[in-house]
Amino acid sequence: MNQGRLRPSENRTIVAKPLTRAAFAPFGDIIEKDGAQNFAINDGNCVRYHDLASVDVTGPAARPLINIFAAQACALPLELKMVERHPLGSQAFMPLSRNPFLVIVCHDTPLGPAPPQAFVTAPGQGINLKRNVWHGVLTPLYEAADFVVVDRGGDGDNLEEHVFAQPFRVDLP
Amino acid sequence: MNQGRLRPSENRTIVAKPLTRAAFAPFGDIIEKDGAQNFAINDGNCVRYHDLASVDVTGPAARPLINIFAAQACALPLELKMVERHPLGSQAFMPLSRNPFLVIVCHDTPLGPAPPQAFVTAPGQGINLKRNVWHGVLTPLYEAADFVVVDRGGDGDNLEEHVFAQPFRVDLP
Repeated sequence: MNQGRLRPSENRTIVAKPLTRAAFAPFGDIIEKDGAQNFAINDGNCVRYHDLASVDVTGPAARPLINIFAAQACALPLELKMVERHPLGSQAFMPLSRNPFLVIVCHDTPLGPAPPQAFVTAPGQGINLKRNVWHGVLTPLYEAADFVVVDRGGDGDNLEEHVFAQPFRVDLP
Repeated sequence: MNQGRLRPSENRTIVAKPLTRAAFAPFGDIIEKDGAQNFAINDGNCVRYHDLASVDVTGPAARPLINIFAAQACALPLELKMVERHPLGSQAFMPLSRNPFLVIVCHDTPLGPAPPQAFVTAPGQGINLKRNVWHGVLTPLYEAADFVVVDRGGDGDNLEEHVFAQPFRVDLP
């Protein structure tokens, strides 16, 4: 099957699955306490869940940035017209609320992004997208949400976009 | 006045002040939307509050880490026995709730840390401590809280502690 160009008869509705480390491993890290290496610090008053995401910034004058993204809620079913990727850096999203968000990613193929896979986060989960992974834009569910975002600053073009020949629909189960 | 060694008669109670960019500038960055450079992205569905903190990691094999710290609430007045600093890296703390936390920092002197200054955050504020700034450990108010923390991994000794000859008390106004 040509993963990059589906025939019109093929199903273009993607149903989001629960976000798990195993399913998401090809695309990046899940930032959460559950299942993470941890140890007590500060005389036992704090638990450090340690080194949860690989920050990967490259290219000229590369440096990690810390930002806040304030995103509007997405409507369901989501009409997914395009995905993007960042060839020079990883991008971590940690929600500042317990509200879930949709995570949409694609494998890469010689013909461009494969059909999307969609995940829905559990409360408290964030993600870190590996450098150059195709993904949808930030899509909180139900209500607007703020995220702390760790990504890449520097020189060079760090954005590539792909518009699908036909949009996909992404929905919850 | 010898800032490092107070006489017993001197006041050892520190009253926390509201956290503002101006007051905190010598110690680091405030991570918040208010007053930050920002621009719309994602077809106007998201606002990016851009580059809010200077991540500064140095020394052998230095790399930025993303962690979650789960901290117990501190009791007030806080008995501050010691402060610490990290000579090889900055350390950013962004709360994953709207609950405020205490921020305790000290200027450095040739005799060690000066008497502490204390700040209380507004909902939604995080901080980034500059490399090598003396600070108290993470102290959320009222209830336990999780924070996303961006600090430094690598080789070398990145922790220095200073125990005060007498503890300070830190309280709210």
